[in-house]
Amino acid sequence: MDKDLYAVADFCLIPIGTASVSVAEEVAECQRILAKSGLKYKMHGYGTNLEGPWTQVSQAIHDCHAAVHATGAPRVATDIRIGTRIDRHIPPGEGNEGKVKRVEEILAKDNEANQH
Amino acid sequence: MDKDLYAVADFCLIPIGTASVSVAEEVAECQRILAKSGLKYKMHGYGTNLEGPWTQVSQAIHDCHAAVHATGAPRVATDIRIGTRIDRHIPPGEGNEGKVKRVEEILAKDNEANQH
Amino acid sequence: MDKDLYAVADFCLIPIGTASVSVAEEVAECQRILAKSGLKYKMHGYGTNLEGPWTQVSQAIHDCHAAVHATGAPRVATDIRIGTRIDRHIPPGEGNEGKVKRVEEILAKDNEANQH
Amino acid sequence: MDKDLYAVADFCLIPIGTASVSVAEEVAECQRILAKSGLKYKMHGYGTNLEGPWTQVSQAIHDCHAAVHATGAPRVATDIRIGTRIDRHIPPGEGNEGKVKRVEEILAKDNEANQH
Repeated sequence: MDKDLYAVADFCLIPIGTASVSVAEEVAECQRILAKSGLKYKMHGYGTNLEGPWTQVSQAIHDCHAAVHATGAPRVATDIRIGTRIDRHIPPGEGNEGKVKRVEEILAKDNEANQH
Repeated sequence: MDKDLYAVADFCLIPIGTASVSVAEEVAECQRILAKSGLKYKMHGYGTNLEGPWTQVSQAIHDCHAAVHATGAPRVATDIRIGTRIDRHIPPGEGNEGKVKRVEEILAKDNEANQH
Repeated sequence: MDKDLYAVADFCLIPIGTASVSVAEEVAECQRILAKSGLKYKMHGYGTNLEGPWTQVSQAIHDCHAAVHATGAPRVATDIRIGTRIDRHIPPGEGNEGKVKRVEEILAKDNEANQH
Repeated sequence: MDKDLYAVADFCLIPIGTASVSVAEEVAECQRILAKSGLKYKMHGYGTNLEGPWTQVSQAIHDCHAAVHATGAPRVATDIRIGTRIDRHIPPGEGNEGKVKRVEEILAKDNEANQH
């Protein structure tokens, strides 16, 4: 199958076998890799939103693994949530933000209703 | 085991068997449930950060399932990332934010170094 | 919301901040906890299927965290997939197995079709 | 980064916006795609173990999305767990099975100890 689907994703990477309890250095290393990837990304408390053509999203996460291994982590485990859709075009870089916006619009109507 | 561990979590809920392509209504319904839970939470592009005593975090996600079922979804599937630690106390409500802050501090040093 | 939904789940637990590259001891400790839980469970290559009333499933995973902390892991992170449904009753203990069976029945028809 | 890390993975795909409560047809379609991928895979109650070079694992899951879209699902969401390690070589196809075996060996010693 040739076509590269547009992927809206989120991932949480964990280094294994490092004596350090903190994973902040490894997460920072991932952010540096993502900055070079050219993809839209945004860190949150338990992972990082990431989106773009599937192959590039996958490659960016792969490169995070490689970079974290290079810092000394013998093993790396990641949880990825990844979604695709064919019902409509997602303007590049607007997949994750668009989802938040639509939910906020619905909740804003609750507040309007409550004020009347 | 009696002690209820403090849990720093993130979850992404998906309704199944609804004809609608959008899941924004269901996600909004979850935000309403979380608002009533008393727990600290914050929505992002592919899920919602949530934290508190494990039992309450689990109950809040359970109640999201129940609420989304009540809107008509016959089936609901959720991905939960959940973490606990015993090396130090997490000030209630500061688990997810604290993680972001520590990574941002590391990255800020990159920028300082680059400016010299 | 009072009713405890029946949950069909799967989880993958990772200890953080242990110097060991292998996580087999920690996963084994979880299996011991699950054996005592009374719930139906089954380990596979990247996690463990688990099912039962939501509260008990959540408690069992909580107790795995507590047990792994007790072995010395300062931090534990778990990925949980959890599903509920209200369209039909799931006979206790048959949720995960039932799903595999239905897929295998569909694939068995492919083979029959190919033989003709 | 050129090297393609060997990935031991597990994924759970969910179609969104299909009126059907059952996802068995879509999961079966994925199994057909995986059978053609040449990769080692094994379905369980809440996902499918899959392993091979990272790029091929990612491509196989991408192709599952494309195939499930082709069956009519406008939207598809997948949860992927993926791990890599550089401390030792994983014999191709033995990553997920090897992990189960090591845990079972540990638990087998419990039983021996109990019999004495």
